[in-house]
Amino acid sequence: MKKTKTPNKRARNPKAKGPMSPNGTRFAEAAAWLAGIGKEFHARGWVLGTSGNFSAVISREPLRLAITSTGLDKGTLAPGQFLEMDETANVVRGDGRPSAEALLHLAIVRGVDAGAVLHTHSVWSTVLSGSHAAQGGIALEGYEMLKGLEGVRTHKHREWLPILENSQDMIELGEHVSKTLRESPGIHGFLLREHGLYTWGAGLQEAKRHVEILEFLMEVLVRSGAAQST
Amino acid sequence: MKKTKTPNKRARNPKAKGPMSPNGTRFAEAAAWLAGIGKEFHARGWVLGTSGNFSAVISREPLRLAITSTGLDKGTLAPGQFLEMDETANVVRGDGRPSAEALLHLAIVRGVDAGAVLHTHSVWSTVLSGSHAAQGGIALEGYEMLKGLEGVRTHKHREWLPILENSQDMIELGEHVSKTLRESPGIHGFLLREHGLYTWGAGLQEAKRHVEILEFLMEVLVRSGAAQST
Amino acid sequence: MKKTKTPNKRARNPKAKGPMSPNGTRFAEAAAWLAGIGKEFHARGWVLGTSGNFSAVISREPLRLAITSTGLDKGTLAPGQFLEMDETANVVRGDGRPSAEALLHLAIVRGVDAGAVLHTHSVWSTVLSGSHAAQGGIALEGYEMLKGLEGVRTHKHREWLPILENSQDMIELGEHVSKTLRESPGIHGFLLREHGLYTWGAGLQEAKRHVEILEFLMEVLVRSGAAQST
Amino acid sequence: MKKTKTPNKRARNPKAKGPMSPNGTRFAEAAAWLAGIGKEFHARGWVLGTSGNFSAVISREPLRLAITSTGLDKGTLAPGQFLEMDETANVVRGDGRPSAEALLHLAIVRGVDAGAVLHTHSVWSTVLSGSHAAQGGIALEGYEMLKGLEGVRTHKHREWLPILENSQDMIELGEHVSKTLRESPGIHGFLLREHGLYTWGAGLQEAKRHVEILEFLMEVLVRSGAAQST
Repeated sequence: MKKTKTPNKRARNPKAKGPMSPNGTRFAEAAAWLAGIGKEFHARGWVLGTSGNFSAVISREPLRLAITSTGLDKGTLAPGQFLEMDETANVVRGDGRPSAEALLHLAIVRGVDAGAVLHTHSVWSTVLSGSHAAQGGIALEGYEMLKGLEGVRTHKHREWLPILENSQDMIELGEHVSKTLRESPGIHGFLLREHGLYTWGAGLQEAKRHVEILEFLMEVLVRSGAAQST
Repeated sequence: MKKTKTPNKRARNPKAKGPMSPNGTRFAEAAAWLAGIGKEFHARGWVLGTSGNFSAVISREPLRLAITSTGLDKGTLAPGQFLEMDETANVVRGDGRPSAEALLHLAIVRGVDAGAVLHTHSVWSTVLSGSHAAQGGIALEGYEMLKGLEGVRTHKHREWLPILENSQDMIELGEHVSKTLRESPGIHGFLLREHGLYTWGAGLQEAKRHVEILEFLMEVLVRSGAAQST
Repeated sequence: MKKTKTPNKRARNPKAKGPMSPNGTRFAEAAAWLAGIGKEFHARGWVLGTSGNFSAVISREPLRLAITSTGLDKGTLAPGQFLEMDETANVVRGDGRPSAEALLHLAIVRGVDAGAVLHTHSVWSTVLSGSHAAQGGIALEGYEMLKGLEGVRTHKHREWLPILENSQDMIELGEHVSKTLRESPGIHGFLLREHGLYTWGAGLQEAKRHVEILEFLMEVLVRSGAAQST
Repeated sequence: MKKTKTPNKRARNPKAKGPMSPNGTRFAEAAAWLAGIGKEFHARGWVLGTSGNFSAVISREPLRLAITSTGLDKGTLAPGQFLEMDETANVVRGDGRPSAEALLHLAIVRGVDAGAVLHTHSVWSTVLSGSHAAQGGIALEGYEMLKGLEGVRTHKHREWLPILENSQDMIELGEHVSKTLRESPGIHGFLLREHGLYTWGAGLQEAKRHVEILEFLMEVLVRSGAAQST
């Protein structure tokens, strides 16, 4: 029967992952956290116009992520609007389609063993990723704020924020992300050109901290005249 | 009797459009939505000083719009302050006068079959519509954020945001708007010079998304130095 | 007895102005409104660091104003912290000292028959009143937003915003204000150099609208490059 | 017994400092105030990414400070997350580690007899402390807003805001702070290069007022073009 060969997404939702299972609890906690982040980032203008997407790992074996559904206003996310997806971006819980960029989330989770991935579209990242595209990235150095990035101990740290060419081909872009993570070990985020920031953390608090720090430092650069001088 | 020849607006309010009719429900829903949009846009500084106006189509046959009453603080709109107007901008429900720009809302609803029209006065649109007036518009190209505009599939899309000369003659300006919509099919909004942005959508969520996206991209342009370079 | 010759301010508070009198009601309403304005303006950064002061006329004969007490955080004003003062800036209700600038409020109320006076210290007014001090004022022309100023009917209106030299001598400055209001009939506000904006209205809503409009237009000028070009 | 020789921090917490003691009350009040400041400053973008730290003196003899614990999101501080530390930065109440910069708080409390010390990381202070590092500080002069700084009576006041080289050696930096306070009597704050602002007050309200004023004036300088002209 054709019906059983192409089960709909709801039917594939395994009962063992119901709301009372350990995964269910982690899923609900992650969704509540991500909804709160959406509200705060939307107020700051970092995820306007349904832009941006967020995910959190809720199981490693097998790999499962809670992730935002595509096309929603990030300022009014309800926990019930989140999806659970597996290691191939198939939805295993919830209704809706994950962001087209789900493959980038998976590439990051695998590439740096992240527990949460946050993607924002701020004015600052859009401006700087355009003005500095030819340099291939932005160097952040000398700022105390850098110490908030996991593992950084001094303001003398030099953080390289690579800029990747934007693309609508997510398989190609996912491979580009994986390659960047391999070739630039120790980075805490990257920009897609005239698109936005990707950053991550071991958990959601760390990932949120990294967004705040990198957005802050990009604003500092633009206000220091960096976008005009290149 | 003179009284019956010049009925006041309340008297013309047909009973069939009372709060329990289908139109009444749609009117109430639209008013609640628009009041929420007003509060959010006022906080962002997009509709200061009673500027801006919002409308939503609540019936096509005959054409009826819920629209903001003129002269109110958009940060504290109550649903009861909205008006229902017909296809000639006559008020058929509620007390007050619709915005002088009601004719522009009607021109847009007819010209692009919009379900909602939102008009904001942001700093960014005021600056850019002045600096780029001689070019007749602003080109937005290469930004991922463009994909949030209905029907746009790639950041390589080139969006043209026409700038119309401002005027206090609403009949003339309405005709100018209609002509612009005919001659520039596929646009998602336009600017009135040193006045503000008009955008729209099939529904209120789409129209709000378009405001956020176009305001975002105008801020990006100004912060990239576009307003100084022309 | 010396005590009766120098009555404290509480003792002079006439019983006829108690909370249940018409003045008392108007005082309470004005105080509640002004507290709300303080919270909103503080959030926008227009009255940081206890700066700014607000007043509203609650009686014409004799002249009585509700006014902010000096030295308070405008973001957390309680209605009980407001003062009522007479035509010589003496406190007739409430504890505390009115702002040193109470004389400027009185000069404006008399000079233009205002019902409310609002004074803000924004970044935009501080920057522009410094950059344009040599010109004696700022011309605002061509902006649709000007139509929100009482009595203005077209964006072609030219609004002159005089800049007065700042001073700590309030009697001298009050006379300067009175002279400016006589010599520039029709203005809607003025700046004190590197200090801030004064504007007013027939009532509190109109005065608040004028603050939002003038602050908006000053931000537009600075972001258009006006502060750098002079 | 080794256990008594190296008591853990909780064990050293003297019973006399319990929640019902005078110190306990002052500690609880200070913690509640500082949590509120954290929420407000985080919303303004002045303490993003767990940056910033706050303290208040709750006892002079012996010296005891309520201080933020390191590594927390300043937008969601709970009063129970604050620490009480003694004159050598040892924790005597609460769980957690005080900020590495606790020594700077102590140097300021001793150097200028402050009752509260607030440290922020704003975009404005980061930009200006970088652009003006070679001058050794920033002069603020002619602004009415200066009068909000304790003891300042006129806008003609010239406030010097020293810029200290940033360092991760807190003992060295604390000595540098003490030296600066001795050599520049009357200052109301100082900057650490590309790091942020330190300011203080006799109490928490005064310290908060000083943050708002100095942040405001730094924003004015950057928007007036100061960061580009040096």
